[in-house]
Amino acid sequence: MTSTATESDPQKTIQQLTERVDALEHSAGNDRLSLGVMSGNLDTTIAAFIIALGAVAYDMEVDMFFTFWATAALRDPKKSPPKKFMDRMFGWMLPRGSRALPLSKMQMAGIGPKMIRSVMSAHGVKSLEQLMKEAGEFGVRIHVCEMSMGVMGLKEEEMIDYPGIDYVGVGSFIQMISESKQVVFL
Amino acid sequence: MTSTATESDPQKTIQQLTERVDALEHSAGNDRLSLGVMSGNLDTTIAAFIIALGAVAYDMEVDMFFTFWATAALRDPKKSPPKKFMDRMFGWMLPRGSRALPLSKMQMAGIGPKMIRSVMSAHGVKSLEQLMKEAGEFGVRIHVCEMSMGVMGLKEEEMIDYPGIDYVGVGSFIQMISESKQVVFL
Amino acid sequence: MTSTATESDPQKTIQQLTERVDALEHSAGNDRLSLGVMSGNLDTTIAAFIIALGAVAYDMEVDMFFTFWATAALRDPKKSPPKKFMDRMFGWMLPRGSRALPLSKMQMAGIGPKMIRSVMSAHGVKSLEQLMKEAGEFGVRIHVCEMSMGVMGLKEEEMIDYPGIDYVGVGSFIQMISESKQVVFL
Repeated sequence: MTSTATESDPQKTIQQLTERVDALEHSAGNDRLSLGVMSGNLDTTIAAFIIALGAVAYDMEVDMFFTFWATAALRDPKKSPPKKFMDRMFGWMLPRGSRALPLSKMQMAGIGPKMIRSVMSAHGVKSLEQLMKEAGEFGVRIHVCEMSMGVMGLKEEEMIDYPGIDYVGVGSFIQMISESKQVVFL
Repeated sequence: MTSTATESDPQKTIQQLTERVDALEHSAGNDRLSLGVMSGNLDTTIAAFIIALGAVAYDMEVDMFFTFWATAALRDPKKSPPKKFMDRMFGWMLPRGSRALPLSKMQMAGIGPKMIRSVMSAHGVKSLEQLMKEAGEFGVRIHVCEMSMGVMGLKEEEMIDYPGIDYVGVGSFIQMISESKQVVFL
Repeated sequence: MTSTATESDPQKTIQQLTERVDALEHSAGNDRLSLGVMSGNLDTTIAAFIIALGAVAYDMEVDMFFTFWATAALRDPKKSPPKKFMDRMFGWMLPRGSRALPLSKMQMAGIGPKMIRSVMSAHGVKSLEQLMKEAGEFGVRIHVCEMSMGVMGLKEEEMIDYPGIDYVGVGSFIQMISESKQVVFL
């Protein structure tokens, strides 16, 4: 009788261990990377997409969360939906899409970004626009912070056409990072 | 005899597995988030508190580590303890608390922060000061880098009244992040 | 017969669990920290090395990945290999090593960095150069982004002598962070 009891105990323990290991594996998120993109400079945005595509090449799923200044990097300069006065004012001050992003350093009245782009291209690095296109093709998911869109006066209708792009709250970002191996915030 | 041996082995293995899973669960820190707050701008500080409160809403414990420029965000402008000359000089140059924080972009001689605050309020986003108050109420822990306080010439007596605020070394930050699911550094 | 089956099942389950826990422990990277160093300011670079040495003191292995602007922090001002025109131009604009790094705030035409260095020294904080030396002695690994070196026009021959410094692609960074407990990006 006692022997039966000790034999059944391990089985229960194994069952519990299996459940705990299941949970650990799920939350470890070893095949998933989150990128928080906030500063919205040309350099940081290029870095974000290079990391995203690097992770995809290592079979990770990648979620990018664009917030605050970085939302303007996703504007499509060819689209200009009607806006109220205050939103229009912000719209003027914010960069109109990826091609208008400033550098975090050496901006030099707009010469810096041109120089960096030209040097990167000379070194065979893809342009930010090409990187964004590839990210879409390789299944990198882009999520845009709804609240930031509102504050910056941006409309969904003026954003780039990116496969599956969606507009979410901070809760989505929290969930994203709690199911990821790492979060890189830049 | 052999059968007894093979019966005792699994039990030992199960015991060892249980300990390893215990350790993994502890260090996974799935219910804990660390925020490293360094740059001390209005935008990054708001983002830090929005992420902190978002995480709390998802039942995570949150530790914020304020270092370097960000320490000045926690000054209480109504308090001014006596200081030595050099510390006083730094004190003049650093923002006197959350209401004096600059933006990382579009500072426009102080117009930027006012605009952002007014637009955020119009969009129903809580002010930085409200976010900080709520963080305290919801148990977000704030730790301030002692060394930065010294370098910036800040005294504990001039900091805001925040429940449980403490002054710690970099070792605390390392411990914090090694027991957290993620660290977001901004 | 049935009893034999149920007796062999737990053993197989234990074997599988052990393998899964092995994998979880490996990828948890609890004894390893990655630092992504990008912005290349005096303050962020000092912070990176203080965190690195703090982690080492807690028995973690540390990998630093220097990319974009931060690569210039590793230039040795005494070395100046021959360069083509464009690379030379970039070389002039970028800081010549750690002693020439700007602050992210309060740069004040070069007075800011001098002030911060003098105040940090007065508070017994080691200089950036001392921190870098100690990092090398304590086995902190430095990896430099090859692509950034190319874009910034930097040559391996002009970089500091740091034990084991190597020049790698973004893939190394991805691998680094997927085997680390955390990544801090600054």
